[in-house]
Amino acid sequence: MSKELVFGHQKPDTDTIAAAMAYSYYQNQLGYETEAVALGEPNDETTFALKAFDLAAPRVIKTAANEVDSVMLVDHNEPQQSVADIDQVAVSHVIDHHRINGFNTAAPLYMNVRPYGCVSTVLYEMFNEKHIAIPADLAGMMLSAIISDTLLLKSPTTTDHDKEAVEGLAKLAGVDYEEYGLQMLKAGTNLAAKSDNDIVDGDAKSFEMGDLTLRIGQVNTVDLADVFARQADLEKAMQALMDANGYDTFVLIVTNILNSDSDLLILGKDAAKVAQAFGKELAANNRINLPGVVSRKKQVVPPLTAAFA
Amino acid sequence: MSKELVFGHQKPDTDTIAAAMAYSYYQNQLGYETEAVALGEPNDETTFALKAFDLAAPRVIKTAANEVDSVMLVDHNEPQQSVADIDQVAVSHVIDHHRINGFNTAAPLYMNVRPYGCVSTVLYEMFNEKHIAIPADLAGMMLSAIISDTLLLKSPTTTDHDKEAVEGLAKLAGVDYEEYGLQMLKAGTNLAAKSDNDIVDGDAKSFEMGDLTLRIGQVNTVDLADVFARQADLEKAMQALMDANGYDTFVLIVTNILNSDSDLLILGKDAAKVAQAFGKELAANNRINLPGVVSRKKQVVPPLTAAFA
Repeated sequence: MSKELVFGHQKPDTDTIAAAMAYSYYQNQLGYETEAVALGEPNDETTFALKAFDLAAPRVIKTAANEVDSVMLVDHNEPQQSVADIDQVAVSHVIDHHRINGFNTAAPLYMNVRPYGCVSTVLYEMFNEKHIAIPADLAGMMLSAIISDTLLLKSPTTTDHDKEAVEGLAKLAGVDYEEYGLQMLKAGTNLAAKSDNDIVDGDAKSFEMGDLTLRIGQVNTVDLADVFARQADLEKAMQALMDANGYDTFVLIVTNILNSDSDLLILGKDAAKVAQAFGKELAANNRINLPGVVSRKKQVVPPLTAAFA
Repeated sequence: MSKELVFGHQKPDTDTIAAAMAYSYYQNQLGYETEAVALGEPNDETTFALKAFDLAAPRVIKTAANEVDSVMLVDHNEPQQSVADIDQVAVSHVIDHHRINGFNTAAPLYMNVRPYGCVSTVLYEMFNEKHIAIPADLAGMMLSAIISDTLLLKSPTTTDHDKEAVEGLAKLAGVDYEEYGLQMLKAGTNLAAKSDNDIVDGDAKSFEMGDLTLRIGQVNTVDLADVFARQADLEKAMQALMDANGYDTFVLIVTNILNSDSDLLILGKDAAKVAQAFGKELAANNRINLPGVVSRKKQVVPPLTAAFA
């Protein structure tokens, strides 16, 4: 068996980095030769978590086929969210918690998908099922991932599995997860240091809906006003990305992690239709307010998929 | 949680029936309300296995949406192999051992795919991981499925996981698997009692390759001559199915289960290209001989997928 690379999606977040590290460790324990890599540099939140548990960031790759024949995907399955040359390598394993979309293989593979709030929760259960011990530093990283994806277990994507995993991993890592979690989330919302492009596209993903390509970004903050003070510049950055990449519509979800509300900033030819998908009319400032909405996957993508089907 | 149906692919074989029964049992133990159903009547081999372990055949359904909102798929994921109205229901769970092709969901789900010889081997491991006991009769049915899919562990699709599962399930079921297995496989090759249509299409599946639809059937025998004595009638049945359903090419794999060789009978506009995919020239009798080939999934579909890509 030759070496394989393990990686998550483009624009890596804490879950995607933690999952690559955890799954590579898991597979190496089972006798595979794997290396966790990433499709980009860690963001501020992930950097905080890596530092907290004294772990190095995975090496960044641009392509995979120049190194390996076969790869393992974590935290994504859609080809357009993966490495640029994903069509040049075989996918041998997928561990994920997203919908399945456009993912096809020529041969059978290992695939473990569970509808949890975080893929690190899937991995936590896999470690337990195989009775593989999780080292304290890796447990801390996986804990950080679940806190990040579920906004400290407050997102509607949170399942009982995520809660159990947080309890178990916090014990293994030796941290108070509420105290640590709030510090970590705040570290990720240091927007003053971020460029307009980072804010609108740093966590963005593309979604094919009908004939359209929607770009959906999300940014967390402790104060919506901090973000919208820069609205004119953010809109310029969104428009430039749409022009350069052919996105039909760009949606930026601005989420207040303290009270779990979001404003959506919407540009593009179907902006009004996006607003309608949530039963709203688009305001003159291109925004709609969605109380209680914090999850792109569970609360934003499904209504849009239905509206654009 | 409302009731869900659990079923395998169209033209059910022993694995698909056994997997539906086993996974429904497993989910009911976990507190779900499920019913194992089938998309057709059991074949001779499956009937032999059901009788041997005193089990009733699952109820046959034509559509699912008239009964439930959500279904669990076993032993397949490709929509064209599933229930006719698969686009009208949500898929909540998939347990499979095939390639992923054309399977898309609107929401996250449970998906457990492992590249084993038989999906009952995946299920055997899942029962063990959750420490759920397998009743003797169900173990016998799962054992029958693995024997069927791996031709008594002789197919190249066979993995060490399948061998371990056969040992474990034979113990639970209280049978000598080699003696029982040969009886069961022979019961499935009673071709004299089968119509031409049953032979060519009874186990057939459709595959989209490039712009083409290939229909690939397989029939097991203990003597190739028994099958090819009827070649003219079998070709008529294949041609009629192509005309009626718009298949571009029809491949019938005729497998000798005693010596693990196959002849392919090939009709349709790309028949010569099919032969070339295996490095052969199509003989005037529309056949090619493939020594050591017994697996549609592992030895027939991949070269064709590559040739028609």
